Amino acid sequence: MLYLVGLGLADETDITVKGLEAVKKAERVYLEAYTSILLVEKEKLEAFYGRPVIVADRELVESGSDEILADADKTDIAFLVVGDPFGATTHTDLVLRARELGIESKVIPNASIMSGIGCTGLQLYNFGQTVSMVFFTENWKPSSYYDRVKENVDLGLHTLVLLDIKVKEPSLENLARGRMIYEPPRYMTVAQCASQMLETEEERKEGVFGPDSLAVGAARVGAADQKLIAGTLKELAEVEMGRPLHSLVLLGRKTHDLERDYIREFAVDQATFDACWQRAYGASS
Amino acid sequence: MLYLVGLGLADETDITVKGLEAVKKAERVYLEAYTSILLVEKEKLEAFYGRPVIVADRELVESGSDEILADADKTDIAFLVVGDPFGATTHTDLVLRARELGIESKVIPNASIMSGIGCTGLQLYNFGQTVSMVFFTENWKPSSYYDRVKENVDLGLHTLVLLDIKVKEPSLENLARGRMIYEPPRYMTVAQCASQMLETEEERKEGVFGPDSLAVGAARVGAADQKLIAGTLKELAEVEMGRPLHSLVLLGRKTHDLERDYIREFAVDQATFDACWQRAYGASS
Repeated sequence: MLYLVGLGLADETDITVKGLEAVKKAERVYLEAYTSILLVEKEKLEAFYGRPVIVADRELVESGSDEILADADKTDIAFLVVGDPFGATTHTDLVLRARELGIESKVIPNASIMSGIGCTGLQLYNFGQTVSMVFFTENWKPSSYYDRVKENVDLGLHTLVLLDIKVKEPSLENLARGRMIYEPPRYMTVAQCASQMLETEEERKEGVFGPDSLAVGAARVGAADQKLIAGTLKELAEVEMGRPLHSLVLLGRKTHDLERDYIREFAVDQATFDACWQRAYGASS
Repeated sequence: MLYLVGLGLADETDITVKGLEAVKKAERVYLEAYTSILLVEKEKLEAFYGRPVIVADRELVESGSDEILADADKTDIAFLVVGDPFGATTHTDLVLRARELGIESKVIPNASIMSGIGCTGLQLYNFGQTVSMVFFTENWKPSSYYDRVKENVDLGLHTLVLLDIKVKEPSLENLARGRMIYEPPRYMTVAQCASQMLETEEERKEGVFGPDSLAVGAARVGAADQKLIAGTLKELAEVEMGRPLHSLVLLGRKTHDLERDYIREFAVDQATFDACWQRAYGASS
């Protein structure tokens, strides 16, 4: 049996009781560690599970799935995913491959950032499509996300923006020279995301959002030091929210008063927040 | 401290290790039991937690929040919510009230149907707004959900439809006579939802969906007897998916081939599925 076990969002105790049971009895335990990260070290997980943990990088998961699935018809394999196994990153390919090999699989759900973002007090019903923001480089500033955000904005809906992480990726320079030397890990911050958004708006000029658009930055959702900050994109482009992971929600026009009351508490500056709110938000649906 | 603890989707072992610790040391434990249900009895929860559980109905949560929050400045109170505390139903009002009273609160996230629906293999990135379907009566068949679905369909996105449950609600007749006699609980099935959708389409005739539109029915997500069925709305209007809770996803046009491969496995009839797919789905974004 292949168990896909969601680990939740913050630390080793966010696993479910059911998930922990599956991990404890698994023959081999893999940790998917390239699309998201927990806020604790692998060693801490191993101590908590009482099992060795094999870190699965992108290469192993995408090209070596048969290695992961070896003997899974006779024994139990646990594949651990930060958040939910079918949340932000859908590991359907691994399950499809298991199906082909006649191996049963079982998913143990957990909190995903896609629902955990509800901690902002914003109603999940009022969210449109989720988008991803990648690290811009000098020559590569993809703006296709902007079209998705526009669709949400036109409908008055919130947009969850998931922020890029780079873990164990060779630099372009090293890749070109065929050297597998990895860059130090990088995690996009709320400030970087907000300024990249303003950069896209500068370039596209369709008025989808601007320096005065309200957004909520969320850091370390579910952790003891979870942090939420509400403000304009201009304000958020300057905030310091501490260690990863970060996400951002761009507020939709149809925001409800109860949502406002909840997030106003975290405003960088309540006077600015109120002024921006007054101007553009709170339209009833 | 007020702990809002997500219980996850299926049974008592879906609580997180962190959540269980909070429940075990709480002075009083409330279970929100009117917007969703776990698939196990209260007694089983009490045995698992080693604590008595107070069932909180709508009246207590909406009008008696001060009773729930009594002494929460000096002692720990746990408020348990099926799924995630800020998922499908956002308990922000309770947290706002706690704030007013100077009581700290802490949210312990868990799987919500809003992300757990990823078990269908459909990418959460491709979902638009979530809608709710209420039980139609002879004279009340609200169709505002249809407008939201139309917005998603126009963008090629999937729609998660959450199905009504009626727990401890007086009948209209009893309410009119001032008698607090409760109806037996009712949970909407995938079949009921699909036929109500077709009823709305019959009435509105805007071609948002129809008998040949593809959808996925999901029952008991996260449970050992979880069941998924893919088919046309006409087919789903006839399926029997067993005990609650059920949800439905209407497929968006932009469905990816990998999503198709995943759900085709659960098709009522693969030939019909392929024919419908061929006609209307798989458009690239």
